[in-house]
Amino acid sequence: MRVLILGGDGYLGWPTAMRFSGKGHDVAVVDNFARRRWHEQAGTDSLTPIASPDDRISAWHEVSGKRIESHIGDISEGTFIADTVRDFMPDTIIHYGEQPSAPWSMQSVDHAVITQQANVIGTLKLLWAMREHAPDAHLVKLGTMGEYGTPNIDIEEGYIEIEHKGRRDILPFPKVPGSFYHLSKVHDSHNIHFACRIWGLRATDLNQGVVYGIETPETKLDERLVTRFDYDQAFGTALNRFCVQAMIGHPLTVYGKGGQTRGTLNIVDTIQCVELTADNPADPGEFRVFNQFTESFTVAGLAEKVRHAGEEIGVEVIVENVANPRVELEEHYYNPVHTKLPSLGLKPTLLSETLIESVLHTIQRHKGRVIAEGIDPSTLWKAPLPERVK
Amino acid sequence: MRVLILGGDGYLGWPTAMRFSGKGHDVAVVDNFARRRWHEQAGTDSLTPIASPDDRISAWHEVSGKRIESHIGDISEGTFIADTVRDFMPDTIIHYGEQPSAPWSMQSVDHAVITQQANVIGTLKLLWAMREHAPDAHLVKLGTMGEYGTPNIDIEEGYIEIEHKGRRDILPFPKVPGSFYHLSKVHDSHNIHFACRIWGLRATDLNQGVVYGIETPETKLDERLVTRFDYDQAFGTALNRFCVQAMIGHPLTVYGKGGQTRGTLNIVDTIQCVELTADNPADPGEFRVFNQFTESFTVAGLAEKVRHAGEEIGVEVIVENVANPRVELEEHYYNPVHTKLPSLGLKPTLLSETLIESVLHTIQRHKGRVIAEGIDPSTLWKAPLPERVK
Repeated sequence: MRVLILGGDGYLGWPTAMRFSGKGHDVAVVDNFARRRWHEQAGTDSLTPIASPDDRISAWHEVSGKRIESHIGDISEGTFIADTVRDFMPDTIIHYGEQPSAPWSMQSVDHAVITQQANVIGTLKLLWAMREHAPDAHLVKLGTMGEYGTPNIDIEEGYIEIEHKGRRDILPFPKVPGSFYHLSKVHDSHNIHFACRIWGLRATDLNQGVVYGIETPETKLDERLVTRFDYDQAFGTALNRFCVQAMIGHPLTVYGKGGQTRGTLNIVDTIQCVELTADNPADPGEFRVFNQFTESFTVAGLAEKVRHAGEEIGVEVIVENVANPRVELEEHYYNPVHTKLPSLGLKPTLLSETLIESVLHTIQRHKGRVIAEGIDPSTLWKAPLPERVK
Repeated sequence: MRVLILGGDGYLGWPTAMRFSGKGHDVAVVDNFARRRWHEQAGTDSLTPIASPDDRISAWHEVSGKRIESHIGDISEGTFIADTVRDFMPDTIIHYGEQPSAPWSMQSVDHAVITQQANVIGTLKLLWAMREHAPDAHLVKLGTMGEYGTPNIDIEEGYIEIEHKGRRDILPFPKVPGSFYHLSKVHDSHNIHFACRIWGLRATDLNQGVVYGIETPETKLDERLVTRFDYDQAFGTALNRFCVQAMIGHPLTVYGKGGQTRGTLNIVDTIQCVELTADNPADPGEFRVFNQFTESFTVAGLAEKVRHAGEEIGVEVIVENVANPRVELEEHYYNPVHTKLPSLGLKPTLLSETLIESVLHTIQRHKGRVIAEGIDPSTLWKAPLPERVK
């Protein structure tokens, strides 16, 4: 199988590239290294010292004997993605190549615009490129559970059968996303659905929960193969951020009441889900949606788990409820269906105290690299207005 | 009331500007004249000879004694719309300022990208501009009934109450739009809904049907005040196009079976609906959706009406079912609710044979300007692939 991985330099993209390459597939990665630049601009960085793009690809060749092809460019600009798809002729396109942070997208009009431009226009150009050069390829698109928001009914996988005034239809599940980033993913889903209906493209939208974890089997093979690990307020997700806070003696920053419930999964399950999806492609014309997570936790519940794991390894951890920088419900109903990936064979790696302890130990090794200034929330969903317009 | 009209040079924008100005409001129009340019590029034009932007504004001043302010620029670029909102300080913003054609958006990747960029990024910048400079202004946004597609259940006005597995919620009505243009409006709706929820902005989304008609009371006051009238395959809507075809002896081009049913309204009702909406603003934080049309017709039914009206004035009209350039259901259920505007006081001007005859007479006067080459469908939703990739 020829596998093109967009965002192949990222937290999930790089381990995914190694997995598919290791399994004997022909793999090419695409990236514009935007995340590396955004970190530089913000004065933040990955906890783990990641190798340069060239060095990690060379190291992978050394370790595995396999070659990963690299295409450097921005999928939203010019004909770059069309040229890449035409030249590489993929069977499967795994699309992580988007601005991935909600707080980042909420910082300013420019950040919101860059997010929707990069994500929506990038994916739109990809769809046209597939339509012209690879109409039979399978698009595996990373979406987010955050597209749904927190409705008062069970969240289904992409579609819902509605009975209304004596008639019935199966329609896309209504979306109430919570940031300009989450909105960009909703826009993507609508655009991809359309391309499947009109052009007969095949796609699977993976509405992923919050990913945690620091290692996959491949990243452990060589220190030059480690993947990035973000813990800052923009790119760090809750559990990863809590673990770093625990190890540097920073109170765990639970936003608001902490009753926000989210689906979560281990990074090793992300890779497993993407493999299962690629191995079982959607039919031509089909736009398939999987809810990709293994367990749900409240934010306060995650903090408590980290506190307890810290205690076990002799680290005292304080949990602090800070003012919520986001606008979101802090207590709500949450019961999303997630049976499609298990039915393809997903064997979940559930969150255990041992896992958290092992993450804490890994963080301990890199503790000297922590930039504490980047951790506290600095982006408000509803920033105060300047005096003059109040 | 200070009224800012985006797309104030357009088919609907210009008559709207005159209406609000005539009623004594302070009106400013914003336009980048993109539609005039797109017509030039395509070798097509408005049937009616429209005056230059400056000339129509001067003529309006001459006729009415009122001044309309003009801001020239692209709302998706730089800080133009933020500066305009800050300087004008509108109470109401009426937003027609988008690429308005489905076929235009389907021509190529570049057309699709320009459409989503102009519409989605333009509206996104407008929302941030409102949030910073005019947080209490009421946004009246032109959407389209085409956002909904043709579900097998009744279409509600923006939201639907769903009962599912014993629980209930009121959620955005699921959207299955039929072109990259229609998708851009769906993306807009999601972004605006979010801005209302998070920032407390107030907005009304007018999901408008297909508009027909050539005159409003204001456009009839002086020949320099006429509004544009498009009949080409990109910008001409069904009834307007049929009327022109009838008068030049061109068969009426019904796409496919012609059983496609759409909500329609007269241009004078568009202006009436927008006035009613502006006079009855949404509450702070409210994202209100009105379905803005007065009657539903099938495409074949509209053609038949034009054929009959032609007969009455002694013109022989042939109706032809041509291969459908679009991908759409040609027979389907269609029953959208549209009670909110009538409950605000909308008095519909229904489609009558007399009205069609009067449109035909007006077309007769401008018959010499018709560019016949631009009428037949030239944009296919699913263009054949180039040989090499078939």
